[in-house]
Amino acid sequence: MTQTRIYLDYAATSPLRPEALAAMLPHLEGPTYNASSLHREGRRAKAVLEESRERIARVLGAKRKEILFVGGGSEAVGLALVGIARASAGRHVVASAIEHHAVLRSLDLLSEEGYEITLLGADERGFVDPEHFASALRDETALASVMYANNEIGTIQPIATLARMARRRGVPFHTDAIAAAGWMPLDVEALGIDAMALAAHKFGGPKGVGVLYLREGTPMAPILRGGGQEFGKRAGTEDVAGAVGCATALEIAQAEQERKLARVAGLRDRLEQGVAASVPSVRFNGGEPRLPGLSNCSFPGVPAETLAVKLDLEGIAVSPGSACTSGVAERSHVIAALGTADAGEAIRFSLGPPTTQEEIDRVLQVMPSAISELRRT
Amino acid sequence: MTQTRIYLDYAATSPLRPEALAAMLPHLEGPTYNASSLHREGRRAKAVLEESRERIARVLGAKRKEILFVGGGSEAVGLALVGIARASAGRHVVASAIEHHAVLRSLDLLSEEGYEITLLGADERGFVDPEHFASALRDETALASVMYANNEIGTIQPIATLARMARRRGVPFHTDAIAAAGWMPLDVEALGIDAMALAAHKFGGPKGVGVLYLREGTPMAPILRGGGQEFGKRAGTEDVAGAVGCATALEIAQAEQERKLARVAGLRDRLEQGVAASVPSVRFNGGEPRLPGLSNCSFPGVPAETLAVKLDLEGIAVSPGSACTSGVAERSHVIAALGTADAGEAIRFSLGPPTTQEEIDRVLQVMPSAISELRRT
Repeated sequence: MTQTRIYLDYAATSPLRPEALAAMLPHLEGPTYNASSLHREGRRAKAVLEESRERIARVLGAKRKEILFVGGGSEAVGLALVGIARASAGRHVVASAIEHHAVLRSLDLLSEEGYEITLLGADERGFVDPEHFASALRDETALASVMYANNEIGTIQPIATLARMARRRGVPFHTDAIAAAGWMPLDVEALGIDAMALAAHKFGGPKGVGVLYLREGTPMAPILRGGGQEFGKRAGTEDVAGAVGCATALEIAQAEQERKLARVAGLRDRLEQGVAASVPSVRFNGGEPRLPGLSNCSFPGVPAETLAVKLDLEGIAVSPGSACTSGVAERSHVIAALGTADAGEAIRFSLGPPTTQEEIDRVLQVMPSAISELRRT
Repeated sequence: MTQTRIYLDYAATSPLRPEALAAMLPHLEGPTYNASSLHREGRRAKAVLEESRERIARVLGAKRKEILFVGGGSEAVGLALVGIARASAGRHVVASAIEHHAVLRSLDLLSEEGYEITLLGADERGFVDPEHFASALRDETALASVMYANNEIGTIQPIATLARMARRRGVPFHTDAIAAAGWMPLDVEALGIDAMALAAHKFGGPKGVGVLYLREGTPMAPILRGGGQEFGKRAGTEDVAGAVGCATALEIAQAEQERKLARVAGLRDRLEQGVAASVPSVRFNGGEPRLPGLSNCSFPGVPAETLAVKLDLEGIAVSPGSACTSGVAERSHVIAALGTADAGEAIRFSLGPPTTQEEIDRVLQVMPSAISELRRT
């Protein structure tokens, strides 16, 4: 018997959109050339690359030259943090304690290099306090970085406010928008940010493709050096197919935003209300505003990994914490920062555009007995 | 009228092999999941990733855990150089002056960080002298790096000899094998190397995928930090489709080596003999042993870029120097290091497995008049 699977881990990765694949295929099937070659084949590849860059710039309200293609979200984040900090005279960086590991581990690297790091806590609802943020900024602050939306609990930070405060102090502001992309407006002028990291596979683009928006005039020391690709800011032969797939997926994900928001949030609320009504002592982590597809909940006495395995056997794919610790379920640093639940007991449901009411209802059918079984043992 | 194009720039990039695309498609069309997720979908993606890693390890005679997937050749090179140097107590690095820019610019980065760099010259035939190499090694040498085959002139360096010398001094040895892959044996034990960089798109794999072979026990400080992917050595959600495409292309490229070597070298020799017989004062750069598909020649009085543009208009795609300087034809540092020809006058023809005798004969038809025209003006 083939089990019908229910995938509720869209925050870990979203399947490649058929439109993105269709846009990529001509550049995979037909010979793709080196976009840095000067001959006709190279110039054609270059034209496709630059058109993709232009399309992404348009979605972000940015200039073409402010869009850098990189090898993934982690590289985009690392390049922003390490690159901007190293290009600055200041030796102090401000970030939040609930950032993704790509940010936190990059901060470790900077710390090893002698930078002082100020990590701002989050309140128990999962938000960074703008006043704390403002008071952490100093004359020698090289960079401030706060994620747009949290990848584990979905809380949406007041990015425009924080960016304005940073600008007033002359501090470059980066936001990790990897979890937010596809769900939130990404206009860089409205947000007022200087750098923003995106990962294509989180919004239906291909894996191995990231984008770093870098405001014109923001100094940045490249990490990968070699050929002069990406305006001299990131060496490596350009992945034209990946760039096209990324641009196509981003356009669609952002265009369909309004249409999908209410529907997905409705399903998520149905899930939370159903769980609250049928499972004793559940705690939902993270306050509003939240990403519509995200629900993070804790069931006291039930280790998240055990619950995730149980649900997996029932045909439901969810994530204990986040997926990005490479096959290892570790205690969530995000939940730990909130201080309201056991960091080893938080389960993330993440819904995507394809999620159906039938899937949610099936989850609601399974949850009460799953939790009570696990609580008995 | 559609012009039949003749592509003789396989060293810039090789089209994706149909077998590689076929292997990738199920992981692009079907939903690809996050290989670090613990659920069934994630474990399946992980299995495909690890099988790809195993296949590459088998081709290289390496262990599975010694194969790291990265975002391209430049990243593989940068990670080897910067990562190994930073993990060492020594502050001295040895390399050759004819390395690719990915190596040379990474050395610039290390130099900025206070490392002392010894750049070994090449003789006029394009070879690094093993005795010079050995005498450059010191107790505090953190790393030695010499490319397997040069990407502009094709000269094949005595890697096994150099690696043996490095090992005798306890110095980790890295080779940039990006130009050599597909044409030369890559067995890491026979070569005796500690690290080796590969770029998938140079041997018929996808762009945006690189491999770093890193011998077990070789200390390396990761550049991209975040999730614990790639054994904690390179953060970022794994590009499963890219890994499969890379493994498939590498297996085929290495398996067909013997079969294609003589044929391609024969066509290359036909090209060189034909040019020598029909064009006055041509100089071929780089001695033997050379990659079979590479021919680098200089026509005194004829700027390489002008000739490349002229040939492009005649339907022939070649490269002035290498492609990797992003649309800018700059004077070749490799030819400059040889000191035997004008560094602005070197043209690279690079043949691939699909190259035909008809294509070579068409080039030979065009060359004499093209050169004499350009020499007149």
